[in-house]
Amino acid sequence: MSQPSDLENAINTLVTQFHSASADNSPTLKTDEFKGLLSSQMPNLVQIPSDNVFGEILGKMGVGDGEGISFKHFWNLIQTVATKQHGFLSEQMGSSCSCILL
Amino acid sequence: MSQPSDLENAINTLVTQFHSASADNSPTLKTDEFKGLLSSQMPNLVQIPSDNVFGEILGKMGVGDGEGISFKHFWNLIQTVATKQHGFLSEQMGSSCSCILL
Repeated sequence: MSQPSDLENAINTLVTQFHSASADNSPTLKTDEFKGLLSSQMPNLVQIPSDNVFGEILGKMGVGDGEGISFKHFWNLIQTVATKQHGFLSEQMGSSCSCILL
Repeated sequence: MSQPSDLENAINTLVTQFHSASADNSPTLKTDEFKGLLSSQMPNLVQIPSDNVFGEILGKMGVGDGEGISFKHFWNLIQTVATKQHGFLSEQMGSSCSCILL
């Protein structure tokens, strides 16, 4: 096996960070665990809104009422963030994005 | 703006690596550029198959005949890789995955 590349390490980080946000090692995150992940790990990319708006965001991510947040749901969020960032890069508007994306 | 977190850096790496694989700074990659990205950046996660099979893989990623590979297409591939890796992590089978995923 080759030395992991930057890109492979990046994928590993996404997986590991999601996983480590679960207190009981569950495949899905509780809402509070997910909020903790966003506020600790995505402070520049996502701003946590009020509870009402947060519920709407979970809905947009495909999370049903009372349902845990799966890696797939998380992925939908990251895709929005990454695609936005890719758009900025393509337009050469700089390499970082500090806007609120949801 | 806070210091970027590990997760924000990881997202940035995914975006930057995709972007830098384009020789002419285009928003989409040509097939050869995409192959170059996979072989240089994902040697442990994806094994490049023969041209026939590679065409099928592009089809699964949603790339039409003669179409360039967009970040969204690339994202579909990474999702497959990351979800698989997350499955492994959840089952505590180790933190890395060296299998062929497509």
